[in-house]
Amino acid sequence: MTHPVNPPARLLMGPGPVNADPRVLRALSTPLVGQYDPVMTGYMNETMALYREVFATTNEATLLVDGTSRAGIEAALVSLVRPGERVLVPVFGRFGHLLAEIALRAQAEVHTIEVPWGQVFPASVVEEAIVRVRPHLLAMVQGDTSTTMLQPLDELGAICAKHGVLFYTDATASLGGNPFEMDAWGLDAATAGLQKCLSGPSGSAPISLSDKAVEVIRGRRRIEAGIREESDEDTGEPVHSNYFDLGMILDYWGPRRLNHHTEATSMLYAARECARIIVDEGRQAVIDRHERAGRAMLAGVRGLGLGVFGDVAHKMNNVVAVEIPDGVDGDAVRGALLQDFGIEIGTSFGPLHGRVWRIGTMGANARLDTVLSTLAALEQVLRRAGARVPHGGGVDAAYSGWSAA
Amino acid sequence: MTHPVNPPARLLMGPGPVNADPRVLRALSTPLVGQYDPVMTGYMNETMALYREVFATTNEATLLVDGTSRAGIEAALVSLVRPGERVLVPVFGRFGHLLAEIALRAQAEVHTIEVPWGQVFPASVVEEAIVRVRPHLLAMVQGDTSTTMLQPLDELGAICAKHGVLFYTDATASLGGNPFEMDAWGLDAATAGLQKCLSGPSGSAPISLSDKAVEVIRGRRRIEAGIREESDEDTGEPVHSNYFDLGMILDYWGPRRLNHHTEATSMLYAARECARIIVDEGRQAVIDRHERAGRAMLAGVRGLGLGVFGDVAHKMNNVVAVEIPDGVDGDAVRGALLQDFGIEIGTSFGPLHGRVWRIGTMGANARLDTVLSTLAALEQVLRRAGARVPHGGGVDAAYSGWSAA
Repeated sequence: MTHPVNPPARLLMGPGPVNADPRVLRALSTPLVGQYDPVMTGYMNETMALYREVFATTNEATLLVDGTSRAGIEAALVSLVRPGERVLVPVFGRFGHLLAEIALRAQAEVHTIEVPWGQVFPASVVEEAIVRVRPHLLAMVQGDTSTTMLQPLDELGAICAKHGVLFYTDATASLGGNPFEMDAWGLDAATAGLQKCLSGPSGSAPISLSDKAVEVIRGRRRIEAGIREESDEDTGEPVHSNYFDLGMILDYWGPRRLNHHTEATSMLYAARECARIIVDEGRQAVIDRHERAGRAMLAGVRGLGLGVFGDVAHKMNNVVAVEIPDGVDGDAVRGALLQDFGIEIGTSFGPLHGRVWRIGTMGANARLDTVLSTLAALEQVLRRAGARVPHGGGVDAAYSGWSAA
Repeated sequence: MTHPVNPPARLLMGPGPVNADPRVLRALSTPLVGQYDPVMTGYMNETMALYREVFATTNEATLLVDGTSRAGIEAALVSLVRPGERVLVPVFGRFGHLLAEIALRAQAEVHTIEVPWGQVFPASVVEEAIVRVRPHLLAMVQGDTSTTMLQPLDELGAICAKHGVLFYTDATASLGGNPFEMDAWGLDAATAGLQKCLSGPSGSAPISLSDKAVEVIRGRRRIEAGIREESDEDTGEPVHSNYFDLGMILDYWGPRRLNHHTEATSMLYAARECARIIVDEGRQAVIDRHERAGRAMLAGVRGLGLGVFGDVAHKMNNVVAVEIPDGVDGDAVRGALLQDFGIEIGTSFGPLHGRVWRIGTMGANARLDTVLSTLAALEQVLRRAGARVPHGGGVDAAYSGWSAA
């Protein structure tokens, strides 16, 4: 015997997913319309226009992939890279490994370079690797929640253009909460998800593609048997996926409206509302709010006497990796925060597992009250766990951090 | 300037997507919890148990793929079939072509057999092809909305077992509205979607895998760099997709909870509620209701003097293909139904394009009132389009069809 979903109240202050904005939850509960209803195709077109603002691009090819953020990554890589083509992946955390893994599965020839966790790449190091590897595509995470680092991308587009390399970034964890300039930075492809700074649930992956990227994809055109017409011609080797063939997805979102998948209407409603929230508040204002909340949280955890992992000068605004004090059971602290305060913070992966907690301030949760409540609760839980924490040190520092220009 | 989604009232009587049950819309608007919150993993386990009932199976490996129904198809095919392995696809409509297409993209050696649209395959014809082709996998649509046909599957599992062939079916359009017996029919894999008889939005793909199918998938194990541990060993050639690697998805849904994608929480809430609706009403009762509504609609369109396409003895309960009368503009009729009555019926693909409308009675819409309202509206629209239709002929016949034992 089951009951309707009725989860307890949770304040999600981990590295994502975070709480969805109530506006997004309302959008999710909106009744459906048919797949080719003019109302639906109108919503699709509006969603494209809204995400152009979010990505800061004029790319016509800006749409949603129906799946989680990693579906967007796989769609980009499998559509842009043919088997055997070289892909360069600079890895500075777990999600760099994921890009390499997905490119490998797509039968690319994958080359990686690495920096230790907690650092990012200087542009010169990426350029040296490009010169050496001569890749078809540079694939790079912008913000890797595993280390909290934000890779500067602003110089890399020009480097890629100079060497004739396509430039793709996974902005899942960073988009909306940190500077992002699709066109100004010369990106050819970018993908994201809703569950971080966009304040939505996981399950829809916004993507934007430059004209050059679209040209590469159009060179691998194939229309399904069953809906193809006599005049349709295939070009080149097809993408080794139907679901992630961005050429077909573009034909569905474009004026021809060629049937591919059945668009996930509820998630489209959600994705559209996520973008509206950003456009309503203002793209820069949302980034500024993330910067402010992140600064307050960073000051706050330091005010509690806790260490912070990684090169803080290159930290994402929306997440901080907090060192677990000696003698404190990290999972027990997380458990008490969740059970007794209803607040979730994150554990960590790989080399950082057991060493740091990850605390997020993102999307609808990038606010003063969430920062203060989390720090106040963390102080109490640490105190009860036997750690020496200054009374009010986290909250005071966070107030100061929030107010600092 | 955009506004919140606010679609007009629509009664969706096409081949799907159809209206979501209000219970599902409420579930969609439920606040999120964290990915590894015990509440969340509890919901995941309940969802697995609920879909075992829906699929009529004891398969432990019963879960969701995060994407539309075609994501489920691709996950099944790409995980079960290695490049170069033979796949047999009996094609009796557009979605058979889709299975062949997806298998081709997965680099399988694809063999198809075909019957004309409007027919299904006798088991003996499938067996002959199996003997000739010696496939690794038989992939077959159960219900193809393009033709409305329901392929009998009950004898095919034994044939596949006899010849050592894996047996997969795409039950997207049929599950919930027509007999389906995963275990009794000897299926190794089945996939579906929410947007047809399950009364949900597109965007989540329930899947069930037999122990034999899981064994095949486990023979291709690969754990991602970034989360793998020393003791993890890879086996065999990996699946040429990360997102659709069912081995990884099983590790995420299983007790090890190895991170893969971030589960699409809102769509999981929806999928769970779709299954609860079926379990609450009773699986057989839901199928019976679809049978009754389908019988009423079939009688009704005939009562309007309209012809019906295909072998009606093998029609799915939940959709009927109605011949467009000579001299009537099919798209204009559909347009008037939508614009003036708020009722959507479907157009059609390929050889049937312009020849038939497809009218669905599925999920939450498999009811007497929806059938009568659609027929009453269709009668008026046809009359105004200049067709000769008996006054009340559709509604009267539908009442009789609904009441016939």
